[in-house]
Amino acid sequence: MRSNENTKAALGALKLDAAGFTSILEDRLPFAQLMGIQVDAFELDYVLLRAVYSERFLRPGGTIAGPIMMGLADAAVYAVVLSRIGAVELAVTTQLSINFLRKPEPCDVLAKASLLKLGKRLAVGEVVLYSEVSNELQPVAHATATYSIPPPEQGSHRS
Amino acid sequence: MRSNENTKAALGALKLDAAGFTSILEDRLPFAQLMGIQVDAFELDYVLLRAVYSERFLRPGGTIAGPIMMGLADAAVYAVVLSRIGAVELAVTTQLSINFLRKPEPCDVLAKASLLKLGKRLAVGEVVLYSEVSNELQPVAHATATYSIPPPEQGSHRS
Amino acid sequence: MRSNENTKAALGALKLDAAGFTSILEDRLPFAQLMGIQVDAFELDYVLLRAVYSERFLRPGGTIAGPIMMGLADAAVYAVVLSRIGAVELAVTTQLSINFLRKPEPCDVLAKASLLKLGKRLAVGEVVLYSEVSNELQPVAHATATYSIPPPEQGSHRS
Amino acid sequence: MRSNENTKAALGALKLDAAGFTSILEDRLPFAQLMGIQVDAFELDYVLLRAVYSERFLRPGGTIAGPIMMGLADAAVYAVVLSRIGAVELAVTTQLSINFLRKPEPCDVLAKASLLKLGKRLAVGEVVLYSEVSNELQPVAHATATYSIPPPEQGSHRS
Repeated sequence: MRSNENTKAALGALKLDAAGFTSILEDRLPFAQLMGIQVDAFELDYVLLRAVYSERFLRPGGTIAGPIMMGLADAAVYAVVLSRIGAVELAVTTQLSINFLRKPEPCDVLAKASLLKLGKRLAVGEVVLYSEVSNELQPVAHATATYSIPPPEQGSHRS
Repeated sequence: MRSNENTKAALGALKLDAAGFTSILEDRLPFAQLMGIQVDAFELDYVLLRAVYSERFLRPGGTIAGPIMMGLADAAVYAVVLSRIGAVELAVTTQLSINFLRKPEPCDVLAKASLLKLGKRLAVGEVVLYSEVSNELQPVAHATATYSIPPPEQGSHRS
Repeated sequence: MRSNENTKAALGALKLDAAGFTSILEDRLPFAQLMGIQVDAFELDYVLLRAVYSERFLRPGGTIAGPIMMGLADAAVYAVVLSRIGAVELAVTTQLSINFLRKPEPCDVLAKASLLKLGKRLAVGEVVLYSEVSNELQPVAHATATYSIPPPEQGSHRS
Repeated sequence: MRSNENTKAALGALKLDAAGFTSILEDRLPFAQLMGIQVDAFELDYVLLRAVYSERFLRPGGTIAGPIMMGLADAAVYAVVLSRIGAVELAVTTQLSINFLRKPEPCDVLAKASLLKLGKRLAVGEVVLYSEVSNELQPVAHATATYSIPPPEQGSHRS
């Protein structure tokens, strides 16, 4: 019994790279800037984003506020979708579900996103969020998000 | 056939009012500040929060970024939970699911939250998010969120 | 401030009625039959389905098993979508989220579904599930579900 | 940078094995019987359940109905939770989210569940559902589910 999960070989080349997505983050997503989001890795089968810790992430209890993690998770799925379809900026989230697993320490949060499905109209991504504590990654949340991909003529591929 | 949904009479008094929650927003949730969140109404059976529009809410397409709506939805459920149990700041989100229904115009977003369940350990809230366009409310998203309520001895009731 | 939520006047006529959906339930959804699902009401703005109690719904604790409630919720959203777009049987669920609120008594379960969004490609429905105890409805679960609507040429409208 | 995800060594021994869970399936979950659910594997870090194909699983389009997949996903998380805490039958689902990724062929469905979190009060599991087509596994759905674990004195550990 073999699993037919995609292999790197089947994935082909990236249609948007780390520099391309960083440019979208910086120029087009002001809120991601407030959340200190940057790209750590852009691979064929996953992307890794980082929210660089700031005191404004804190909530009562000294842990990191949920909206920071939700924003990071959403951005990570956006990144992995665009890495596979190109800079179709008008792709939009239609649904997101997140489970918060453990209280995140006051430090950087990492989000590793991969695709569960890439259809013509819908893409579904999965994200695991980690606290980076003393160079160890502790899982703190798990999310899935669905993106709606606009038809090619409306996709506003960024030129 | 009658529905036994709670009536206002059954709800009793608020355990935290608009001023009390505003103080938590301002002193304890710096990120809510960045999202321009303020209280519009604090009633016995719902709360209404508002994210005052800012250009930094925008995403490609000129609509409002998902993380703003997720942050507002989460804060609205926090508000309605605390309105019923008091300023138990350490209540934390364990799960949130959101459906984005329509692209939100670049204007204020309102979140109306009510409780589906208030147990000893878990509370579940429902939120409808609206764009306020020309004084009309257009539903733009729907979310549910679960909060875990800490045991009384650990609740860190704010004094 | 007015809400522009749809009024009955705006909804137009049903494109599938109770008899039409009952026929789909009976002829095309054998599993719904095992769950004892029947139509209680088919209105312009909601549908009400019922799972007629059977001992095979039980789980440890003497309450009703989650899968019965999930199946009923899914069928109710299917019903409300088809009531508005006609017998497009190939509409399929793409996402479902459910919160279980209270343990359901061993009795009939009712599901009241309405639409949060009806787009060309996606429809989003909301469902409240109730136990019918002594002629009173007690809310026991809340769900949302997204249906993907196939393009007209592929829709296999039932003739 | 190491991930501190649990290793088998850290997991300790199973507190319920395949035979024990099969007995719960057969004696206590009549609906799981209707869904043809059986145990394929019970490992320290995951369980694998199977819904043996029956024509009554079908829905329009000749694919497998969503409720079969939701019921199997829920049972698989129940199984992996009980494998770690013992036969605490009164553990109940509080939330489930599922994304349907591809239309499942008319054949057996497999569910592989593992734990994202195991707390004292809440456990969160993740499930991937597969169609078994010609001995290959095709992912067809992804779900997460939260179980509420009753306090020890109420847990009705089966004796």
